[in-house]
This record gives sequence, C-alpha cells and structure tokens, in this order.
Amino acid sequence: MTLTPGDSLRRLREQKPLVHQITNYVVMNETANATLALGALPVMAHAPEEVEEMVALAGALVLNIGTLSKDWVDAMLAAGRAANERGIPVVLDPVGAGATAYRTDTAKRILDEVRVTVLRGNAGEIATLVGVAAEVRGVESIGTAGDAADLAREAGSRLGLVASVTGAVDHVSDGTRVIAISNGDAMLASITGTGCMSSAMTGCFLAVNHDRPLEAAAEALVAFGVAGEDAARGAKGPGSFHVALYDALAALDPATLDDRANFA
Amino acid sequence: MTLTPGDSLRRLREQKPLVHQITNYVVMNETANATLALGALPVMAHAPEEVEEMVALAGALVLNIGTLSKDWVDAMLAAGRAANERGIPVVLDPVGAGATAYRTDTAKRILDEVRVTVLRGNAGEIATLVGVAAEVRGVESIGTAGDAADLAREAGSRLGLVASVTGAVDHVSDGTRVIAISNGDAMLASITGTGCMSSAMTGCFLAVNHDRPLEAAAEALVAFGVAGEDAARGAKGPGSFHVALYDALAALDPATLDDRANFA
Amino acid sequence: MTLTPGDSLRRLREQKPLVHQITNYVVMNETANATLALGALPVMAHAPEEVEEMVALAGALVLNIGTLSKDWVDAMLAAGRAANERGIPVVLDPVGAGATAYRTDTAKRILDEVRVTVLRGNAGEIATLVGVAAEVRGVESIGTAGDAADLAREAGSRLGLVASVTGAVDHVSDGTRVIAISNGDAMLASITGTGCMSSAMTGCFLAVNHDRPLEAAAEALVAFGVAGEDAARGAKGPGSFHVALYDALAALDPATLDDRANFA
Repeated sequence: MTLTPGDSLRRLREQKPLVHQITNYVVMNETANATLALGALPVMAHAPEEVEEMVALAGALVLNIGTLSKDWVDAMLAAGRAANERGIPVVLDPVGAGATAYRTDTAKRILDEVRVTVLRGNAGEIATLVGVAAEVRGVESIGTAGDAADLAREAGSRLGLVASVTGAVDHVSDGTRVIAISNGDAMLASITGTGCMSSAMTGCFLAVNHDRPLEAAAEALVAFGVAGEDAARGAKGPGSFHVALYDALAALDPATLDDRANFA
Repeated sequence: MTLTPGDSLRRLREQKPLVHQITNYVVMNETANATLALGALPVMAHAPEEVEEMVALAGALVLNIGTLSKDWVDAMLAAGRAANERGIPVVLDPVGAGATAYRTDTAKRILDEVRVTVLRGNAGEIATLVGVAAEVRGVESIGTAGDAADLAREAGSRLGLVASVTGAVDHVSDGTRVIAISNGDAMLASITGTGCMSSAMTGCFLAVNHDRPLEAAAEALVAFGVAGEDAARGAKGPGSFHVALYDALAALDPATLDDRANFA
Repeated sequence: MTLTPGDSLRRLREQKPLVHQITNYVVMNETANATLALGALPVMAHAPEEVEEMVALAGALVLNIGTLSKDWVDAMLAAGRAANERGIPVVLDPVGAGATAYRTDTAKRILDEVRVTVLRGNAGEIATLVGVAAEVRGVESIGTAGDAADLAREAGSRLGLVASVTGAVDHVSDGTRVIAISNGDAMLASITGTGCMSSAMTGCFLAVNHDRPLEAAAEALVAFGVAGEDAARGAKGPGSFHVALYDALAALDPATLDDRANFA
C-alpha cells in the first residue's frame, strides 16, 4: 500500500470531478466552498426528480444526515442506489448517530440499502453503528470509545467498507489494514462542519481513486489535516481560522503533500 | 437582582450545554458557530421523528421562524411542548412578525401553545406581538415603537415571560423589572443573523441559568454586545466584522465581562 | 442609453428597497449579506402562506433554482405571478439548467408562467434555455457556447426579456442592444454563490430602476465586478477573498463607480 496524497491532489485538480452532495443545511455553503477550494466541483441536489440524473454525472456521492428528514433520506437512498448501479463511490457521514434513534436508524438503513464505500464519522458515531458503547451529545462526540484503531478495523470488517474514524488522531481501515493519521489541528474542532468538510474531501479524493478507496480516504484526511495546520498558523480564533482554512485548501501544494503526511 | 455575566460564561464553558436550535436556513451555520465560539454545543434538528428526543438532551431550546413553513412550525411546536414537559427553557425569535400575517400568526400560536421563557426580537416584532403599532419592513425593524423600556415591560407583563427587545439599546424585562443594556456596536446591524445569534446566545446563557431567566437574557446580551465591540475594532466592513465576531466570542474573558457590562 | 451605476447605487442606499429572494440553501446567507452590504434589505420567505404578501412589500423578487424541489418551485411560481400583478420586477437565476432535465424544465416553466424581467445565468445555462448547444457540468458552466454577445441578444430576443450572461466578460441584452462589461476578477469563480450574488445584486438595482431593466442589469454587474476587483486586491485565497467581497460591496463609492465601469 502506497499513499500518494500529492499525486491524488494533482489528478483531482486536473480532472475537476463533480462531487454530488446531499448534506445538511448547516454546512452546505462550507462543504461546497471546501470542495471548490480543493479543486473539485460541488453540486447540491436533493429533489427526487433529479438525484439519479445528477449522481450519474458525478465522480462521487456524499451523503450526510446532519439535518435529516423523511424526504431527504428518501433522496439519499435513491441517489445512493443510482450511484451503486453506476459504480460511483459513496461516502456516508452519519452525523449524530447515537444521539437520537432516528439518526441511528437512518444511518443503519442507508448502510443496509446502499453499498457505502467510505463511512466517515467521529468515534461515537462509528461506535454506535457497530454496536460498541459510546457517549454522544447531540452531534458532538464527547467520549472516545475504546481504542480508535480497533474501532476503525472493527467497523471496516463488520460493515464491509472503509471506516474513517476522525479525531485527534484519525484511523482509516478496510477491516484488515489500519492507517493512522495525525495531521490536523485542535482548531478544527472550534468551528462547525469540519467533520462534514472532511467527508466532502473524502468524496473528492474517491472521485479520482475509484480503485483504491482505503488510500483515498486516508489521503483526503492528510490533505485536510495539512490545510488545518496551515490555517491554524496566524488564526486569532475560530472566525479567522475558518477563513484561513479555505485559503489553505486552495494553497495545498501537491509537491510537498506527501512529505507533510504524518502517519502516527 | 445581581448580574454576573462573567460567572455565567465561566459555567457555560465548563458545562458545555447542548443548545437545540430549530432555526432558519439563512443563519444556521452562523448561530451554530456563534454557539460553539461562546463555549456551548449547538445541535440543529427539525424532523418530527427526533425533535422530542433531541430536546430532552438539551439545556435549552431556541425556536426561530426566519424561514418558516408548515412542517418546521409543527416541529417547533412539538419540540417546545417537549421542552416544557421537562422544564427546559425555550427562547422564541419571532423573525419578521408584523411583516406577514403568517409570521405574526405563527409567533402568536407558538406563544399560545408553548410556554416561552424568553421572547427575543426587535422592537417592531415585539410591538406586533403585544398589539402596539410598529413599522416592519420584511424582517428588518425600521421604526422604533415608542419607548423600548415600556415595550419590554409591557411584553413581559402581558405575555408572562421575559421580553428581550434588542436595538441600539437593549431592554430586557419580566414585566416588572427592566434591564437596559447598551453594549454592542452599530456594525452588528451590517450583517444578517446577528439578531438570530443573540437569540442563540440567550439560549446558551439560559441553559446554565434555569432559575434566573431575566438575568440570563440580560447577561447574554452583555456578552454578545461586548464581543460586537471587540469585533468592530479593526473591522474594515461587514465581512471582516463577521469573521472577527466569532474570534471575539471565543476570546470573551469571564474575568473582565462584569466590568465591561454597560447598563444604560 | 446612459449607464449610471453610481447614481443607481446612491438611490439604492437612500431607498433601501426590500429584495425578496426565494433561493437555494447553499447561498442564502451569502446573498442576504451581499444585499445588506450593497445597501438594500434582503428577505427570504418561501412558504405558500406568505410569499404573495411578502413580495407585495418588495422592490424586486429574485428566484433561484439552485436547490429546487417541488414545494419551492410552487412558491417561486406563486411569488412570481404576484410580482407580475403588481409590476414588481423579477430576476430568474436558472442554476444548473442543462445539468438535469428537472432544472431545465423548471427554468422553462418559470419563464412560461412568470413574466421574468432579467434572466441572469452563465453561458451554459442561458444557451440551454434558448436551445443552443452547451456543456454544463453540474451547476458549473464549463464550455462557452459560441459567442456570448450573440447568445445574450438571442436570449433577450427569443425570450422577450433582458438576458444577463455572466462570464469572464458579461453580456447583457434586451434582444436589440448588447452591453458588454469586463469588470470583475477571476477569483469570483473561486467561491460558490457569486453567480447567485450577482443575481441578487441585479434584483437590488432593478428595485430602484423599474423603468430601465437593461441598464439596471448592466449596472449591477459593474458594481459587483468592481467590488470583486477591490476584494481580489490583497486576498490570499478564496476564504479571504470571500470576506473581502462583503467589505468591498459596502465600501463601493457611488462617486467613482461610473468611472470604474469597464465596458468591453
């Protein structure tokens, strides 16, 4: 297994894949701008009349249940099935799984009805979905649920996908191999939607790496983490950090990204 | 009555209460980030399947009708009733009451069916809800409706809640006592959603002050106003002010907040 | 024909017209803040219970199908018809027309059922609506569809409205006259929603120019383009550009705007 985030980023900027996102109201602008800053093209579309046609144009589909409701869940399922039929990779961000039964059940339903390529969440969310005890408060994960590397491996294995468990150190696993990434900065937790952005970044990297989802998921977190490190430098607080994060994503240098990867 | 915004802020940052917000599409990201910057945890959830379960986890509920529609109003009513059953304080922000009959009627319906702890609005909105003449253009209050201190007292008394009437000088009243606060900066009016943010801040302060809603509502406006003053310093316009506002909220110092309170 | 963007901006800031926007979830905060920064008052309202009442208060209506769904399209049609009855100008932003049949059909349906004053889109979207071949990927226009001046004239003529085709050089036409504007900066394409913002700006300028829609549409693009030029100066990337754009809109100087207009 060779991780080449710089090469993936270079191809992403050349190919500018469309990344179809059915996501929550809170972060739509943020994930769209992060996608653009990285170098891909975002599109948000959730109407049953168009999700299947739209996803067919896309290099990846990102589903995010942050402000879910029945119609949106139906759209996610329809888009997910259409993506599966066409071999388009699917990212699921199970925001708040564990906080309410509706979120937990919806995340499980999507996992049942859609072949998800990468499940990207915090430890509490992922633990909930594999049946491990976890403390979740609202949509923020408070406690860690045992060892995150084990959790990622367990999730990857039981659910048959790539599990991407983000936190102070990120762990990505296909159920066999585990990649630990310690790029990033504590300031990423100071603004809302950085988890959702990392899911969007995962979609971007998957779009140019259909045949290596484990590597793509890890490379996305390296790129996003490095941007977080750059943004933290000079930030005076969450507002200026937020702004600097887009500048940093756009300024990511493919030539130095491999060297800056910090595998724990 | 003793106002201790610094102490409330200190407890808020220790307890990190969850603040459940059912709010409008325009400001969701903004109020979530302001809540995080202050030190609490935001969660946005509006599905009928989960609002009651979610609010049960929260320290306060904030209802905001800025982009209302039938399903969202139903969710606000269900969440509000669930909050009432559990003794969780409820903030109502009647955005645009007076502009259309639907907004006025919906705000009145929520006031009828939910025991609202704090009603936070501008003079036009509050005047509309207590039957005083006011000029409202869209969601922006243009004219002042007589004396704001009287309006706050009248609203508090007639509606049986804490009225928080914000403007150049803010007036908070439980129908008997009136607290006037003149923290803040004119630049707060240069961006959308600062009224909504002040309602979210009110929810945050209520979450750690269930037994003193009048004081909490006033302390929230002190904290938000001081942050506005800090953000205005050095801002070049509404964009840089907006960014600096989050930095300033995160940088609020509990040790100096009481001294910086400016009671008119 | 005389273009006087400075005079229009001066009147806009004096009159502070309400601009009713039924737009997409991604950019609501952005177009509201751009509207405020320019000097007008935004209001977002989409409920069938209130759109007709709200638009009656407005100086212009902006319809944007960026994240359309059935209920929102119905609201746009109702608001559009109410605007037509009252002589209130209507801007249509056909986001993503050409990307999916649903978007193309919806844009055409609005054009059929509502008398649109200004159709503001990129070359791919406008070409789709006049039946000229175009390449659209998601909501981003990739290829240019022949000569943009011809496209604008053709759209204006065939659809009986003012066509505002934005790109590196913008072309505005009523089917006879064509105005080409080369204000702006390439960084405007680095963030999402700048097209939507230019439609909102068009609504603002129309609100104080009911009798000269061609000129208002061109003047709006001059103003927005000049703000983009100012924002690009000193921006380090898309994040800081985005922030500076609001500062620049608020700082636009009516006294120098005519001189800074760059007619290609």
